[in-house]
Amino acid sequence: MIAVAILAAGKGTRMKSDLPKVCHTLGSVSMVERVLRSCLALEPVRCLAIVGYQSEYVKESLNGFTGIEFVEQREQLGTGHAVQQLIPHLDGFSGDLLVLNGDAPLLRIDTLKQLLTTHKQNNNAATILTAQMPNPFGYGRVFFNEGNLVKEIVEERDCTPVQKENSRINAGIYCFNWSQLAQVLPNLQSNNDQKEYYLTDVVSLLDRVMAVDVADYQEILGINDRKQLATAYEILQRRVKDDWMRAGVTIIDPNSITIDDTVQLQPNVVIEPQSHLRGNTIIGAGSRIGPGSLIENSQLGQNVRVLYSVVSDAVVKDGSQIGPYTHLRGNVEVGESCRVGNFVELKNTQIGDRTNIAHLSYIGDARLGNKVNIGAGTITANYDGVKKHKTEIRDRTKIGSNSVLVAPVTLGEDVTVAAGSVVTENVPDDSLVIARSRQVVKPGWRMTSSGDESPS
Amino acid sequence: MIAVAILAAGKGTRMKSDLPKVCHTLGSVSMVERVLRSCLALEPVRCLAIVGYQSEYVKESLNGFTGIEFVEQREQLGTGHAVQQLIPHLDGFSGDLLVLNGDAPLLRIDTLKQLLTTHKQNNNAATILTAQMPNPFGYGRVFFNEGNLVKEIVEERDCTPVQKENSRINAGIYCFNWSQLAQVLPNLQSNNDQKEYYLTDVVSLLDRVMAVDVADYQEILGINDRKQLATAYEILQRRVKDDWMRAGVTIIDPNSITIDDTVQLQPNVVIEPQSHLRGNTIIGAGSRIGPGSLIENSQLGQNVRVLYSVVSDAVVKDGSQIGPYTHLRGNVEVGESCRVGNFVELKNTQIGDRTNIAHLSYIGDARLGNKVNIGAGTITANYDGVKKHKTEIRDRTKIGSNSVLVAPVTLGEDVTVAAGSVVTENVPDDSLVIARSRQVVKPGWRMTSSGDESPS
Amino acid sequence: MIAVAILAAGKGTRMKSDLPKVCHTLGSVSMVERVLRSCLALEPVRCLAIVGYQSEYVKESLNGFTGIEFVEQREQLGTGHAVQQLIPHLDGFSGDLLVLNGDAPLLRIDTLKQLLTTHKQNNNAATILTAQMPNPFGYGRVFFNEGNLVKEIVEERDCTPVQKENSRINAGIYCFNWSQLAQVLPNLQSNNDQKEYYLTDVVSLLDRVMAVDVADYQEILGINDRKQLATAYEILQRRVKDDWMRAGVTIIDPNSITIDDTVQLQPNVVIEPQSHLRGNTIIGAGSRIGPGSLIENSQLGQNVRVLYSVVSDAVVKDGSQIGPYTHLRGNVEVGESCRVGNFVELKNTQIGDRTNIAHLSYIGDARLGNKVNIGAGTITANYDGVKKHKTEIRDRTKIGSNSVLVAPVTLGEDVTVAAGSVVTENVPDDSLVIARSRQVVKPGWRMTSSGDESPS
Repeated sequence: MIAVAILAAGKGTRMKSDLPKVCHTLGSVSMVERVLRSCLALEPVRCLAIVGYQSEYVKESLNGFTGIEFVEQREQLGTGHAVQQLIPHLDGFSGDLLVLNGDAPLLRIDTLKQLLTTHKQNNNAATILTAQMPNPFGYGRVFFNEGNLVKEIVEERDCTPVQKENSRINAGIYCFNWSQLAQVLPNLQSNNDQKEYYLTDVVSLLDRVMAVDVADYQEILGINDRKQLATAYEILQRRVKDDWMRAGVTIIDPNSITIDDTVQLQPNVVIEPQSHLRGNTIIGAGSRIGPGSLIENSQLGQNVRVLYSVVSDAVVKDGSQIGPYTHLRGNVEVGESCRVGNFVELKNTQIGDRTNIAHLSYIGDARLGNKVNIGAGTITANYDGVKKHKTEIRDRTKIGSNSVLVAPVTLGEDVTVAAGSVVTENVPDDSLVIARSRQVVKPGWRMTSSGDESPS
Repeated sequence: MIAVAILAAGKGTRMKSDLPKVCHTLGSVSMVERVLRSCLALEPVRCLAIVGYQSEYVKESLNGFTGIEFVEQREQLGTGHAVQQLIPHLDGFSGDLLVLNGDAPLLRIDTLKQLLTTHKQNNNAATILTAQMPNPFGYGRVFFNEGNLVKEIVEERDCTPVQKENSRINAGIYCFNWSQLAQVLPNLQSNNDQKEYYLTDVVSLLDRVMAVDVADYQEILGINDRKQLATAYEILQRRVKDDWMRAGVTIIDPNSITIDDTVQLQPNVVIEPQSHLRGNTIIGAGSRIGPGSLIENSQLGQNVRVLYSVVSDAVVKDGSQIGPYTHLRGNVEVGESCRVGNFVELKNTQIGDRTNIAHLSYIGDARLGNKVNIGAGTITANYDGVKKHKTEIRDRTKIGSNSVLVAPVTLGEDVTVAAGSVVTENVPDDSLVIARSRQVVKPGWRMTSSGDESPS
Repeated sequence: MIAVAILAAGKGTRMKSDLPKVCHTLGSVSMVERVLRSCLALEPVRCLAIVGYQSEYVKESLNGFTGIEFVEQREQLGTGHAVQQLIPHLDGFSGDLLVLNGDAPLLRIDTLKQLLTTHKQNNNAATILTAQMPNPFGYGRVFFNEGNLVKEIVEERDCTPVQKENSRINAGIYCFNWSQLAQVLPNLQSNNDQKEYYLTDVVSLLDRVMAVDVADYQEILGINDRKQLATAYEILQRRVKDDWMRAGVTIIDPNSITIDDTVQLQPNVVIEPQSHLRGNTIIGAGSRIGPGSLIENSQLGQNVRVLYSVVSDAVVKDGSQIGPYTHLRGNVEVGESCRVGNFVELKNTQIGDRTNIAHLSYIGDARLGNKVNIGAGTITANYDGVKKHKTEIRDRTKIGSNSVLVAPVTLGEDVTVAAGSVVTENVPDDSLVIARSRQVVKPGWRMTSSGDESPS
């Protein structure tokens, strides 16, 4: 039986931000939410976040999670002080307490499980996570008695030159037998330079403290400034991309792309350079994305091709081609084997199979059937200045170039709209619509300075 | 006199792909084709590819090459077994056999030449390519007798701890005296864990085996999964980009771009970040490409500027400017000193010199003369729903904004088309064309909820 | 009192360029200009550039700086020869001379200050900048007498094997007591392989020569080819980006972006991948730029959003959203809380607050009021083939889709333009404008091969 406490009270001065440090995001998920998700995978009986600086903001950022308890730490007087705040909340709790840092979001769940296992198997008072750091500067060093028991943790500033050569450092992640911890917590002293209560001081007050080394020291990196934030994101991204490559996704240039860890990719997807896959996105087998594309919260079928486009909140079915320079946004559905092409924007629009909208069109608030062909430069005028109206275009209808469809309007099946028409009234099936002037030619005409109009 | 055998029979399970491993591509050329091209540079008298898994697919992928013989290896029982399949095909062959791996596409031709030279000069029975690996884990280690002769190759799993410290590894690339190899090949045994016939076992059966160290160990990397595929592509790209920089091309951010090895660049070309040059592309001196551009199978003249655009199967002559957000595709020719600009798509279109198509136009199946000016929003309606028709626009003609040219149609020289016209009939030289309605103004009008139409 | 000499006479053969080497740029500023700017921060009494190859070009490239003197070195006979050219120009000068290389633009001003301080405090004849190089190959090695005085500098080619193991190298940056240097300069000999006069030879001719080690050896890297140019740019960019991250800017993927050192960013700006900020650009707090955007010489307010766009010479005020696929260029001003969207180009245009130009429009040479709504596909026809004309659109006016506004034209307040209209005459306030044909429907129509027009 474990409880988890997440330290999330700090301001994070070096972030140079009004936002509390733990609310900064890595790939659209905040640090503290990442830590919380790892916790929940352990199925703790209690989950407490110790909040302080802008605590309302932190609480709100986690309000999608049920069962999390917030413990206020009004002054930030050190990690020991933070954990002391738990005493009234965990009164009578007889299990173990796992203490995590809200600013260390790279920890793997497996590492936490290993920490818990060692803790339980050895019946420890405390088990601390340690790491071998290539450059341990700044970290507390961990020293051992015989029998693999931790003797003490010495902060960098208190280390002798010999002690500094110890590269085994304290990761700041602990598992405690709560009853034993609760007994010694009140005895912490703040008689140090920082006038803070250090959680590490409990080591000498407890009987049996062990350490577990993390295999990959990058997991325990804490984030204190935006450079570390960028570095941590790079580490996370490398994990995600390596996993997908192992699963059979081809990534041409892994360094140039990003993939949120919420994204699902099927085998033989090819990700071209400079592509970004975000949110609840699924991409079907054999699809090719990019270069230069952003896909957000969208479901793409198999063998879809997206080139230099922005696809947001859209469904694109098998075999359709999107781009270059296409923008799908807000409740768009594209059927099978469609082409949605150059300089085309679709918004709140559903289109059937084998329908083409290949050039320079804006289609909004519309429903299109199968095998529709939308000519270049077609616009649905869906907004009358007050509200939005719907356009419906049924199967096999063909819209001529530079036409405007003034909504609300319905065009039946097999309709042909002549180029340059403004369609304002419904059109029955099998009709030709034409709404334009006859061509007049004035021969022998030479352009003067007041001649005609073409922009430059 | 040499024959070459390429091992290309494996499935490549870790690629997680239906495609045979050697058919995966690095910069649009498959691994096995890369290896084959290196072979052909050596002018072998015979070139044999040993195929097995999806052999039809591998054969088809190489059907552009004449003279290559395919040898079927029905079961994959190891490298020794693979080479045994050659015996009936090389009956009576008296030269040397070079054995290459179809999944090791980074080998330089110079390295192969060096291997062959050492082999011939020393009259060896076999000469094997070796490398000093910083991390030799997983590779067979090579051990020597006095006199620089190879004593044995010990696989990782059979190495003693001391042997494991040897970082000289077997690259799996061999040159054999075929007659001597053919004599011992039948003697290979498969009495090992994998029940496979190892080609390395011939070393102890042959008289005089030497080794040649490759200077750069990266050359011998084999590709077994998609992460290694990405790494190999990065290595290849670094070579290509370094070569072009040495030749006088400025690359602002080499890590963010890709250049196929089929591309030709003249001096003082500048490649801006996030640009990709592919296929049979040539870029003339002083041109500047990018950021964010994709150029495929296109010939660009001198001092051309391409910004955020996709250029495919196009010719662009000296001094023309393309982009931002331009798409040229499919048999496009742009003359000298043209501007093809924002949100413009050209398809199967030839345009003369000093012609501008600067904004929001689709021009397809058209021929434009010199000094033509195409107003913003101009569309060639080239498709009648059944077939494509041609548009011709002669010198110095000016097309007003938001016009449609309904093909087939020809506009003569010095024509002016008024804005908003739909041109359906041919227009003689020196004419003004106008096809639109008079402007009507209704004063004192206030928009209501059923007012007018503009999308949002 | 110091004078500065910048060595800028070389051709730079390995650049493979007609441009003099020092005129190649790092982020739009030439190497020599970067060195010159560092000099000027030291407030020298004299600043001399020694020019030779294409000296006119180098002079012209620096003509924005006053007070710089150019000294011609007609033949390039070595660094000693270059500095000899200063003798007639510095006749009677009694201060110190700082000698810098025009092809080493990474030196920090603090490093130069440290060199000067050591020089003055020790009353040296010369003080040379040195570095500990991880790979010193190719550099002159620096050897010392007791008392920290430089004994000699030995060029790579003259080093004994033991000497080559010295990784303390000569950076080629010197501070001299000019009077003492001027006395020994004429004694330099060119009796070496290169037949050149080496400035390093003065070390043995002067009495008291000290060395100052640069903390970061990357500062002294010289640029001789385009690969080194790319490497130097990467080093410079890392500095710039690290500084901004420390200052509170979030950069999602630092490796994929570039920021000119002339750019100013406010806190909590977020830079998405593949974005490039250039020239005199300022970005206000809370704005988010990218992915895939280029911002040049533009001022963006707070909470501006730019997505996949090119913004050049523009002002964008608080809370406005630009993109995706927008091009602002040449004297554009966008008011507060505007949306300028998909496939929209603005040129020489000022727009008020809360005005939307959301889709497929070209607006040039125009002035728009507040709360204007420009329908999709609207074009200002600003060019009559001879000159440009202005369009004015006043507050709350709404332009229907696919309209053309033929300049010069003024639309008053609260005007509504019907979709598909070509507006050629001024429109008073509170009017409806309509310029289009009635819709005609021909029922029972079936498309034939000569049917209608829509491009593909």
